[in-house]
Order: sequence, then structure tokens, then C-alpha cells
Amino acid sequence: MRASQFHLFTLKEAPSDAEVVSQKLMLRAGMIRKVAAGIYSYMPMGLRAIRKVETIIREEMDRAGAMELTMPMVQPAELWNETGRWDKMGDELLRFKDRHERDFALQPTSEEVVTDIARQELKSYRQLPKNFYQIQTKFRDERRPRFGVMRGREFTMKDAYSFDRSEEAAGRSYDIMFAAYKRIFDRIGLEYRAVAADTGAIGGDRSHEFQVIADTGEDAIVYCPDSDYAANIELAEAVSLIARRAEPAKALEKTPTPGKATCEDVAELLKVPLATTVKSLVLATDDIDDKGKPAGVTVWLLLVRGDHALNEVKAGKLPGLKSGFRFATEAEILEHFGCKPGYLGPIGLKKPVKVIADRTVAHMADFICGANDADFHFTGVNWGRDLPEPDLVADIRNVIEGDPSPDGGGVLAIQRGIEVGHVFYLGTKYSKAMNATFLDEDGKPKHFEMGCYGIGVTRILGAAIEQNHDARGIIWPRAIAPFEVVICPVGWGKSQAVRDEAQKLYDALVATGVDAILDDRDERPGVMFADWELIGVPHRVTIGDRGLKEGVVEYQGRRDADAAKLAVGEVLGHVLDRLKQG
Amino acid sequence: MRASQFHLFTLKEAPSDAEVVSQKLMLRAGMIRKVAAGIYSYMPMGLRAIRKVETIIREEMDRAGAMELTMPMVQPAELWNETGRWDKMGDELLRFKDRHERDFALQPTSEEVVTDIARQELKSYRQLPKNFYQIQTKFRDERRPRFGVMRGREFTMKDAYSFDRSEEAAGRSYDIMFAAYKRIFDRIGLEYRAVAADTGAIGGDRSHEFQVIADTGEDAIVYCPDSDYAANIELAEAVSLIARRAEPAKALEKTPTPGKATCEDVAELLKVPLATTVKSLVLATDDIDDKGKPAGVTVWLLLVRGDHALNEVKAGKLPGLKSGFRFATEAEILEHFGCKPGYLGPIGLKKPVKVIADRTVAHMADFICGANDADFHFTGVNWGRDLPEPDLVADIRNVIEGDPSPDGGGVLAIQRGIEVGHVFYLGTKYSKAMNATFLDEDGKPKHFEMGCYGIGVTRILGAAIEQNHDARGIIWPRAIAPFEVVICPVGWGKSQAVRDEAQKLYDALVATGVDAILDDRDERPGVMFADWELIGVPHRVTIGDRGLKEGVVEYQGRRDADAAKLAVGEVLGHVLDRLKQG
Repeated sequence: MRASQFHLFTLKEAPSDAEVVSQKLMLRAGMIRKVAAGIYSYMPMGLRAIRKVETIIREEMDRAGAMELTMPMVQPAELWNETGRWDKMGDELLRFKDRHERDFALQPTSEEVVTDIARQELKSYRQLPKNFYQIQTKFRDERRPRFGVMRGREFTMKDAYSFDRSEEAAGRSYDIMFAAYKRIFDRIGLEYRAVAADTGAIGGDRSHEFQVIADTGEDAIVYCPDSDYAANIELAEAVSLIARRAEPAKALEKTPTPGKATCEDVAELLKVPLATTVKSLVLATDDIDDKGKPAGVTVWLLLVRGDHALNEVKAGKLPGLKSGFRFATEAEILEHFGCKPGYLGPIGLKKPVKVIADRTVAHMADFICGANDADFHFTGVNWGRDLPEPDLVADIRNVIEGDPSPDGGGVLAIQRGIEVGHVFYLGTKYSKAMNATFLDEDGKPKHFEMGCYGIGVTRILGAAIEQNHDARGIIWPRAIAPFEVVICPVGWGKSQAVRDEAQKLYDALVATGVDAILDDRDERPGVMFADWELIGVPHRVTIGDRGLKEGVVEYQGRRDADAAKLAVGEVLGHVLDRLKQG
Repeated sequence: MRASQFHLFTLKEAPSDAEVVSQKLMLRAGMIRKVAAGIYSYMPMGLRAIRKVETIIREEMDRAGAMELTMPMVQPAELWNETGRWDKMGDELLRFKDRHERDFALQPTSEEVVTDIARQELKSYRQLPKNFYQIQTKFRDERRPRFGVMRGREFTMKDAYSFDRSEEAAGRSYDIMFAAYKRIFDRIGLEYRAVAADTGAIGGDRSHEFQVIADTGEDAIVYCPDSDYAANIELAEAVSLIARRAEPAKALEKTPTPGKATCEDVAELLKVPLATTVKSLVLATDDIDDKGKPAGVTVWLLLVRGDHALNEVKAGKLPGLKSGFRFATEAEILEHFGCKPGYLGPIGLKKPVKVIADRTVAHMADFICGANDADFHFTGVNWGRDLPEPDLVADIRNVIEGDPSPDGGGVLAIQRGIEVGHVFYLGTKYSKAMNATFLDEDGKPKHFEMGCYGIGVTRILGAAIEQNHDARGIIWPRAIAPFEVVICPVGWGKSQAVRDEAQKLYDALVATGVDAILDDRDERPGVMFADWELIGVPHRVTIGDRGLKEGVVEYQGRRDADAAKLAVGEVLGHVLDRLKQG
């Protein structure tokens, strides 16, 4: 490809509403163009990268035995009503009526359509396992679309759905997809981690997120550098940091802490480590009786150590909180604690509350907590002596760096990540809701065991850039770079020797299957370099008259500090070597 | 690919709501599955054919220098308001509101978005010509979706848009696309014609439809077997069938024709050729004055020979009718003709009407027309003698088989066709509406000269089947067949020799780049043959124990009446030879 025949469009400055670096760089490099909030055109430069991602995904999905199909973008309400998602899903499911006033939605995923296909076309256990996938436009009407292609409304997703005879077979399908995902992300060439994730109501341990490591990532991912342990922060198990509860050593004392409403402030005032304080968080559940009618409110006091943070996902799995909880209102807090927030604690309650202590808190002795009296805390608090044992002891906090790994393999580290893939065991959730069955070997109908497997195709571009960029622009991994090598001839318009040498190298690269572009725009070197560094082409060869007289050309890898002079005869071999490295 | 690893799904009967043969066969062959009216999933078998069509289109578009991008499916009203199409388009533009109550539509085409891209990214004449294309999901909310993928609501279209400096340059872009389209349809391997089509308000002669020939086609296409002339019926020029008007030979007579309200009935009653009669069609235009206020109604009488049909597209281009016409109401007819329809004519009007005669009618003498008196016709009617010359003589009829070709090259023939592609010169219609300009060499802003070029990707499948099928099923041209060759081993489960020979042939075919499938389902030959004939795989090799003992296997081309016995060692060469033929 010659640059003059391609559509190059670069900007010195990103539009002012661009928020994150990948969005800014994709707009500046002319890869995307905003059409509306969260809706972009993928320009030729961006589409080249997308097609490379899609090809890798398609090859590995096919290799894993999955069948590609395409399900419609516009899906009828009837199917979504069968699973209840038509009503249950929020406004991110964009619903509308057609000209005949019939209800439709734009697909955010396609569980309903694919389960409908399965119940009609997969009649026998002999047809199983089966895995259907599509690489297709999706729409989620995000309340606040942002970060360019990272949280857009219209995007491209690869979604796959497996159908199996049994949970065991579904596990094998899951493992096959897990392995395929590893191959996909290995080939794409990004630093990533597969981390265990929450399975929600489905249960079991078959849910993994594929996270691209990036400081700017929205997700916290937890791993043990000395073992295989990796999980997202919602799931990562926090063990007790105290092996056994110590004997009480201090007396209970009501200590004035005027205006000190946070654990940090109290610890500073009292000159004690933050780890001796306990934080009180008050939740509420709206109870219903057997007939489904409101039956009052239960108030819950959750206790975590002052230096820890509550993990709401973990809390949401506990008995009593499973069906949904909310933070208590100020009125409910006053009613039960007789005190405003900031000075709350488990001692001296006005009305009974359920007390849930984090594992670490349950092992603390002589700790500090609010006294349910404004501007006062208790010090020297001890379980059993000063207050009853908690109603429940559970893991309800986020892990922090340095926590012991739950597998005993070392201590935990935390990185930021961008979720680009998710493999998930669905069980019979959808097949039961839609009564999707096959005839098993015993002649009896059984519900399919399902799994779903997503990859955010367009999001991968954003994640790749968040992970790989510098002040000059994007740094693509070879596998998904819009072009692998750029040849920059200096003086294209003037020098036949430059044109000949540039064309020769271009032809040689293309002949070996390299995706090269020849910049024949006759621009100054500074303009060419700035464009191609912004666009992020990983390898550059500069050919000029001055160098050619000495028999040399310049090579520069996108991450190299400086250009290297190479003999004309050696440059092809050098570029090919560097390409092998990625 | 082995059949056991693929998703095969065939039906003996098509669903009862399937209307046309391509729809029935695609459903029966498991290529598509209906999700809602006009909305289909493309199953693995169907998607394989679609991908082959897409690849051919992509290769030829790239070769023609067009740049692929992707524009969004969901487009904001703001852009569509700029061209007025938000209001002007009918309900086929599916409009809806997002969660923030902002107006959006699903793209039926993308003129607005691409023109917005051009006005922002194509700043200089140096960047021109440019041609952007996408292969992307489209949606048209058809009132009555039907014929499967031929007139669906959600479908895949390749749409391209060219931007040029001048009308002359736009002509070159048009010619390049025209040539690319010919290469595309040649490669796909369907019988087709490129026919001149109406340019509507744009004018000029740059509009061609690519029509796949099929008896079931919705369009009538006109061509001259002895010259290059080809046009669709709306456009095809009808010359006068009478060179010069003869002298009057008969007297004007008012002849009773009781109950004979059609030309056919009158000709039969009077025992004269239908070609001596003239048909009266009454149109009306609602006039407006300089201030845009209603200013009465003009009534028009259009006269075509009894054996001819009015062409409304041609009529709609005439002075006075250009801004839109309608058929006159019965009240308007009574007011102007004093008679009910069936006996109308140009003689003895109650109130003045504008008379437009078709070219042939203007040259007729001694003709027959209605007498504006119920149950009476005039015979022996002659222009000039019995009534004034018509206000306008024009081509207002459809051509019929046997008409002289307007290029003088012979006589016209008519075929039915299915429109699968359209190339169209747009001029500055969109660039002016959206003020999309570039700086020309003289430093002045100019509006882009545009063209648009569509191919119905999914519709091509339907058209291919309408053209190529028999009682047993589909007959794919090689280039877009889901599989090119099927190997049917008889006794797969029992015979090692059969398995070995089938696998050997499969491996050899795949090694030469043939897209083959090996039917390892261990089904009876009848079941295998019925499936693959329905699916339409163009070449089949059957391998069985009995044959192998004699050293022979069977080959059958999908169009062959019988299978041929071939020596085992010759079958590969034979299949490859046949593949070369398509």
C-alpha cells in the first residue's frame, strides 16, 4: 500500500471531550471518528487493526471447533420475554417499536436467540457438544458512554455459546474456550492475565476474566507472583490477617474523639496504628413475608478493619443479604444506633441489628470502634467481654497488596486491568427459562448445559493502546498493527535512487508477507515520523539520498530510543529479524 | 471439515410461510433461520456462502482503490436532518429514541455519515478521488418483508461512496466502480446484466443496475440481443412503432360498444387488431401558486396504444408532471369528461385537459378511442381532422418484446431480473445539503461530486438460488458454494478401506486449496445424497466398498443426470478439472 492511495488523517490535538489516552490517540491517529456519544465510525486505519484482531479470533475459535454464524442485531421482544430479560434489564437494553408497533431490542448479547436456535436445531445428544459464535455489532445504551471504544454504545463483540449434555461436558467446553482465549491473547501480543471472577447466582468456579494489564484499567486484579493464583478484586479471597484472637489487655474506655469521624482521623488523634481501628458500615434489607408483602426492615452492621474496604460483591452473597441490600438511610441509622454516622459501633445499640464481622475483625482484640455517641469512640474493645460474638464472621473485605495468597503460595499483588474477554459457565439458566432440551441417550429430554464466552473486539484496540503508548503515540504489537513496517523515503519527489531503493525494499517485504506501507507523500521527515509514530507502526525504515551515497539506510523500532544505520543490503534481513521479535 | 464437526441441519419441508423457492431452499438447507418477519440468523452453512461473496467484493473493491471503513448501525437524527431525509423518508427508516430521549435511526444507507466524514477529513483536492466502502448490517423496516433474504428488513449490504473534484472525475470513479462490479459478478459466477436505470432528479445517464437473470425476478429488464443496449423497464426508451402518420381513410363514427370498457373488449367486439385502439389514462396535478398556496387542479389525459402500458416513471419526468402527479378521482373525471372511466377519450371534453400522446399514438390514423359517452367509442379517429394535435408527444409507455432497440441495433427482448447491485452518480445532492467542501487547486472551496455504489450481499444468495436450482435443491456456482466438493463414504462405520480412501481424497483436495467436506455421519447414501443435493454442493464423490473392490469410485456434478464411475487413481484429477469449469 502506498500512503498516497490510503486515507491518512492525523490530528495534532485530540478533541477536548476525549478523556483517556487510547481515545485521544485513536482520534488523533485517524482510526476512529465520533458520530454520536459512544458511537464511532471505524476509519480505514482503525479497521485494519480490527480485522487483524477478528482474524486471530476467528482462526482460534474455528480451531477450537466452534461454528460461526450471525444472529440479528434487531431482536424481537418475544424471545427476551421468555427469559424475563426484557423486563429485568435496565435501559442499557435499547428497546423500540417497528412500524407495526411491535417491540424489538438491539442485541447487547444473544443468549435468547442462540438458545432458540439450539432448541430447534439441536435435537439429539449426538449433535453435542456444539459451540456457536458470531463476530457482530452489539449495542448497549450506556448511561454515560466514555473512554472511546472502551465503553462505547455500539461496538463489535465476539460472543460464543456452548451447548452440552452434562455439567461435566460443559466443563470440557469451558476448558477448550479458556485455552482458545489464551491462544488468542498470546497471539495478539498483549500482557494479560486470566483471573477468576464471580459466578453470581450460577455458582461454581467457572468464570474467568481476561484482563489486559494497564495502569489506567478500571478493574483491580489480584494475583500471587509466586503461584498461579489470580482473581479479580470482587472475588479474591481475603484471609484473616490475625491467626488467633489475643486475650484482652486493655479496659473498655469511652474516649472523646471530637470531629474525628473516620478511622484515619481517630488513629491519628490517638496515635495508634490504623490497623487497631474498626470501621462500621450499615446496610439494610427490605424483608418480605411468605405472601410477598413488605415485612419491615432488617439493619445490618458490617465491621471491617480501619485499613480495609468493604467488598459489596462478597457481602451480597451472605445469608440474609443475598436477595439484595442497600445502604441504610440516615433515619434507620438514628433509629438503631441513636447516633449519626461517623461514630457508629456494635456496642450500646438502640434496636437490634445483625452484626457481621470480617474474618480479621473477628480475631482482633483491644480494638477501637465508634461509641454510638457523637464525638466518642470506644477503645480497648474485646469480643465476648464487651459485646457478644458477631452474628456472622465472613470474608467481606477487598484484599490489599501484601495479603497472604489464599492458596498459601505467597503474598498478593494488585494490578489494574481492562477486561477484554470473559468465559462463563451458565448452567441451565437459559435452557430452563426457554425450555431448550435435547433427547439424551436414554431417550429423555434434558436441558442443555450452557456456557458463554465474550471478547470485546473493538475494546481490545483501546486496551492495547492503554498498555502500549508513549508521548509520541501508539505502539502496536505486530499482530494487530494497521501496518507492520513503514518505509519513509526522504526526497521522494526528487530522487530516483530513493524511489528505486524504497520500492525495492517495499516489494521485498511484501513478497515475504509483511504488511508494509510506503510513504510516497513527499513530506518532510519530521512530518512523516510524527504521523507514523502517532499511528504506532512498529518498524520504520528511512531512506534518503545522503545515506544512500554511503550505502546506508536508517532503521528504527517504535520503542527504540534512536535510529540505527544499516547497510542497504542488510536492512531487509534486519527488519525481518525484528519482526520475528514482535 | 468433517460433517460430524459441522452444524448440518436440513428439513424435508419448508415452513408454510415461505413464499419463493430461494427462501424455501435456504430454510430447508439450514442456511438461515427466521427470528422475526424479515429478520434472519445466518447459520454456519449460510454464513460460509456469505463470507465467500464478501471476500470477492472486498478484493475487487480494494483492487479498485476503495478504502474499507465501518460506519455505525445506529445514527443520530442530527445528520439525517441536514439532508432532510429524517423527515422525507418513509417508515422504512426505523427511528427510535435512546435512554436520553435523543433521536436515532438504524442505517438503511450511509450517505449522511460518509459525507460528514468527507467534509471533516477530505480538506484538499490532493486527497481526491476517494472512495469509502463498508460491508455492514443495514436495516429497512419494510412494510411487508418477504421472499426471505431477497426483501428482508435486516440485511448485509456493501455500500461505497466516491468523492471527486469534478463531474468529469466523478465519471471516472463511476466507470471504475462499474468495471469492479462486472469483475465481482463475473467472479461470483451468476448470469447477470448491467442495465441502464433511471437517474431521477439527479439527471444524466450514470445509473446502472446489476440484475441477476431469473424468471422469478421482480424487475423487468430490457436488452437487445444484437447490440449492447440494456436498460430496466422504467428507463428503456420506446420509439414510435409507426414511422409516419398515414392519411385519414375512414370517417369518424360513434360506435356503440355496450359494456366494453377495455381496449381488448372493444377490439374483440369490432373484430379489429388491438393495435388500432388507444387507451386513455387520466392523471391530475395539484397546482400551487407563487406563494405556495393551492391553485386548483390540472387534469391530464395520457394516451397509449391499446396493447401498450403506461410507464409512470417516464410520465413523472414530463413538464408539468415532474413535481408529482396522482391518478384523477372519479369526480374529477366526471367533471372534465362527463363520463365514467372505460369510455374516455380526447374528443368532446367538458372542461379542458392537457393531452399527452405516446409517440406511437401520435402517429396513428383511423384509430379507436372512447367517446366520453358510456357504452360508446369513436372509430376512424384522426389527429388534426377530428381533434387538435396533442399538447405534448412523448415516450410514456413501457417497451414490449419485439420493439426496435433505441440504438438501432435490432429488436428488444425482455427478461426478469433480481437487482443485486446499483451504481449511481449522485452529483452534489448530498455535499450541497451538508455543505461538504474541499479546497480546490485554485484555493476555493468546492462541493464534492459524489457517487454511491451498493451491492446486496445477502440478496445475492437468494438471487443465485432463484437462478440455479432444481427439484432436488440448490445448485451453487463454485465461487460461493458453502463447500465445493463433498465426499460421501458409504459404510464409513464399517469399512477401513472406505475410510482410508475417503480421507486420502479429502486430504488431497484440501492440499490443492479445495473447500471440501467429508460426510462421516455414517448415513445411508440416500440420506447423504438428499442432504448435499438440497444444500447444493456442486461436486460429489461417492466411495463404497463395492466400488473399491473394482477400483472405482463415483463422481457426480450437481447438474449431471447420472453419476460416472472413475478409477480411484483418476478421481482427483477429474474433480479438479470439473472445478475449473465452475
